[in-house]
Amino acid sequence: MTTLPVAPDAFHLYDTTLRDGAQQEGLRLTVADKLKIARLLDELGVDFIEGGWPGANPNDTAFFAAAASGELELEHAKLAAFGATRRVGGKASSDPLTRALVDAQTEVVCLVAKSHDEHVFRALRTDLTENLAMITDTVQFLTGEGRRVFVDCEHFFDGYRANPSYALEVVRASADAGAEVVVLCDTNGGMLPTWMGEIVSAAGAVGVDLGIHCHNDTGCAVANTLAAVDAGAMHVQGTMNGHGERTGNADLVTVMANLQLKYGWSVVPHQNLAKATSISHAVAAVTHVAPNARQPYVGHSAFAHKAGLHASAIKVDANLYQHTDPTLVGNDMRMLVSDMAGRANIQLKGDELGFDLSDREVAARITDRVKQREAAGYSYESADASFELLLRDELGELEAPFAVQKWRVLTSSEPTEEGDSEATVKVAVGERVTSRVGEAFGPLSALDIALRQALTPAFKAVEGFELIDYKVRIIEMGHGTDAIVRVLIDTSDGDRTWTTVGVGTNVVEASWEALHDAYLWGLLPHHAAEPAGVR
Amino acid sequence: MTTLPVAPDAFHLYDTTLRDGAQQEGLRLTVADKLKIARLLDELGVDFIEGGWPGANPNDTAFFAAAASGELELEHAKLAAFGATRRVGGKASSDPLTRALVDAQTEVVCLVAKSHDEHVFRALRTDLTENLAMITDTVQFLTGEGRRVFVDCEHFFDGYRANPSYALEVVRASADAGAEVVVLCDTNGGMLPTWMGEIVSAAGAVGVDLGIHCHNDTGCAVANTLAAVDAGAMHVQGTMNGHGERTGNADLVTVMANLQLKYGWSVVPHQNLAKATSISHAVAAVTHVAPNARQPYVGHSAFAHKAGLHASAIKVDANLYQHTDPTLVGNDMRMLVSDMAGRANIQLKGDELGFDLSDREVAARITDRVKQREAAGYSYESADASFELLLRDELGELEAPFAVQKWRVLTSSEPTEEGDSEATVKVAVGERVTSRVGEAFGPLSALDIALRQALTPAFKAVEGFELIDYKVRIIEMGHGTDAIVRVLIDTSDGDRTWTTVGVGTNVVEASWEALHDAYLWGLLPHHAAEPAGVR
Repeated sequence: MTTLPVAPDAFHLYDTTLRDGAQQEGLRLTVADKLKIARLLDELGVDFIEGGWPGANPNDTAFFAAAASGELELEHAKLAAFGATRRVGGKASSDPLTRALVDAQTEVVCLVAKSHDEHVFRALRTDLTENLAMITDTVQFLTGEGRRVFVDCEHFFDGYRANPSYALEVVRASADAGAEVVVLCDTNGGMLPTWMGEIVSAAGAVGVDLGIHCHNDTGCAVANTLAAVDAGAMHVQGTMNGHGERTGNADLVTVMANLQLKYGWSVVPHQNLAKATSISHAVAAVTHVAPNARQPYVGHSAFAHKAGLHASAIKVDANLYQHTDPTLVGNDMRMLVSDMAGRANIQLKGDELGFDLSDREVAARITDRVKQREAAGYSYESADASFELLLRDELGELEAPFAVQKWRVLTSSEPTEEGDSEATVKVAVGERVTSRVGEAFGPLSALDIALRQALTPAFKAVEGFELIDYKVRIIEMGHGTDAIVRVLIDTSDGDRTWTTVGVGTNVVEASWEALHDAYLWGLLPHHAAEPAGVR
Repeated sequence: MTTLPVAPDAFHLYDTTLRDGAQQEGLRLTVADKLKIARLLDELGVDFIEGGWPGANPNDTAFFAAAASGELELEHAKLAAFGATRRVGGKASSDPLTRALVDAQTEVVCLVAKSHDEHVFRALRTDLTENLAMITDTVQFLTGEGRRVFVDCEHFFDGYRANPSYALEVVRASADAGAEVVVLCDTNGGMLPTWMGEIVSAAGAVGVDLGIHCHNDTGCAVANTLAAVDAGAMHVQGTMNGHGERTGNADLVTVMANLQLKYGWSVVPHQNLAKATSISHAVAAVTHVAPNARQPYVGHSAFAHKAGLHASAIKVDANLYQHTDPTLVGNDMRMLVSDMAGRANIQLKGDELGFDLSDREVAARITDRVKQREAAGYSYESADASFELLLRDELGELEAPFAVQKWRVLTSSEPTEEGDSEATVKVAVGERVTSRVGEAFGPLSALDIALRQALTPAFKAVEGFELIDYKVRIIEMGHGTDAIVRVLIDTSDGDRTWTTVGVGTNVVEASWEALHDAYLWGLLPHHAAEPAGVR
């Protein structure tokens, strides 16, 4: 096995989710969002958090003001403000954007500098000497103001290929001016790992600590980052969940896990790495970007096994089928219920939920029922609570605490103060039948209110139930509005979160089914084993 | 720059979307789906298509039967059937699963063989010699039946690390028995590129054509594949869009584009590569797995630019900001309208849609309006048709061909034959006011029917409009059912597809808004420039 480099003493992780990550299509972060994410990053244990570009983006200016005013208390991480070298022909000391960097009151400032001659000519519209002067002036001004300065060499790799000596001059000028770390950026993301070593080594010859900043345009952001580390980079930039412009930045979660679990470096304490999955998902909740189930290490599917073939062997030894222990990153191995899986999977899944399905008859009957339902559009892979209801039903262990006799909901373009939707729900609890009306903006809200009111007298617990996520997906495309929709609802009672599924041609009906099952599962006598889906 | 290897004469791409890709959580493929995908793969120009595991999976058996019966005519690609070595202590000639491979009537058979000693002991429950005998017997039997045989060495890299000499013995036994290609599989996906070269070279010393099969558990599937190619592998396995179990397989689209555009190999004709984006999305439509907007090369965001900073420079020379020409893979550069973007973006976007926004006043007013709407939850990045309506409205160039005066929809748990939802829509076209009722399963369907009926007399065109995708997303999580939902509707008239957005606390209301705008945009006088969103 090729030996791996040992961790440099000063190795650090630099997160730029709040700045470069926020460039992602469809991603918008409020100041409150940024504060939440910064706290999560600190909890994860990154060394530096780039908060944004003060002066250039009002939101970012406000974020740094909030942080400086004490709204952001960081245990370990240092805050960094991002900015550019001073404008052509000006002075750093009098450049408003450079001043804004000082006003951000961060320990660290990360400056972007042009290192590709073409960009100097065509984007900056100046000459190569002035660009170097801009770097020297700005770095010296900021170090003079007591800042630790990092320099991002924009388009460094493309620049090196076009004009190696100038690209290296930019590294040298940054170092000479007092930059603590010079970061080599693959801004357009076109690099491959095999090209990294030579270029990073050439920059290393300048004799300054090097950083690496990669984008994923060739699908190699993580590998390019590791290749740069192998060549001596001691500072790694990336973003949570690989957020970023175009194809995104290097996923810092994956890089961190690779360095910790494959290289054997301790880049963060092990107990922090064990929070990676929950922190990654918490960040996704703030960014409103659906988590990628296939994300390495922390994805919902990252340790999920479907193949009936493996299912039996996994019983023998799970480690034969996973590249690392999922608990090290706070994830779990999951067996999937699906039409590709045979009885073995269903039985394993049953064990997971605390049901004995060793009886082949029963297991076969449940497997058939699952196959039928999945053929109709249901998916139990992501809805363990609904699967448990099906299981209990087949096992004759489902005593529904309530029965809905009837429901209806009206929505119109002429809302009252209470809303535009009016729902009626008629529920029987034992002998007692209750009808309730709910008014709200939205049929699901109205139905939720009506059902909640009808159940509350008998079941205090429902007051604690909250719908925390609601997803609708069309599952037969190209059929116009007759297409079947699948609704997934996540409900929480503060301790537990459970997922239920509803399917139909009618989004309201499917939503109602998922809502109904959410209340039903929540009101079942507490189970020994929680569904794997519960997080 | 490190020199890259030249393409070996016999280099080929082997797609396993239909077999290993189908292991992905939530993915289910019917025989019809598999036939569709196989045709798309052939159009893309892959050399081999692994169709499934005949005998082990009824669906796959049916697929090969359909293919053999002439339902699948391939221009270039060869079909391969996947299977395992014969059972312990048996004979390949009498093993029903081995027979099923022959019955599949494919030119190629790909056999999975154990190459990790622990898996031989604990999963197969036999000894190392019998495992070699199983390989020899099965390969010889199938070559005897006139099949070209490839061998997938399962868990090869973990096996090599545990017991290098045995792992190599498996490669040798496969080659000696007549295997044409021996494929090294990183089944658990724990490899890193830096470890690849040594192990692949060691296997290469056996003197047989090598293939590579990677999974993405370390986020390095593409890079690991390229590293193996650098070390001499001439056969690359992967899946469309990186589908696969856990974190997925190597994305064959990305690997292909890297080899073609970065290595300069012509693995497929250039005109095929130019179909990569549309074929990748067509496959996603069949798998029902939402395309990853950040997918390298072919993702919807892969060449999308958001930063106001770049927007102005991109005007100078787009190639300064992209790693390759997006048209080579059938993708486009897109400028995004978003609250991070300033006037420059809005103006570029206007140009794209064929509007002159050079007037700073107008551009600023539109930018403000966009900011307000995005603050309320709208997203125009993915809804160019709605953006154009906003643009025309601000420019006073929006003459709505119809005006909805009123609508309502009732949904209940007691459906009639016509459905469970009844909608009324009152529309004015010029002086003429029409009310129509629509009944259907689902409020959106009912509203669509009513609106369609009310508009048809005046506008024949609406008969050709079809809603082809409908997405609902909660955009304020943690607020229970009061959360705001964003609805995106894709409508097609056969030639064009356009996207509209609706936002509200009410999924029906938001859906209505998107539906209304879809009809409105579709009925506008035909535009010179189609929105970039139009595909």
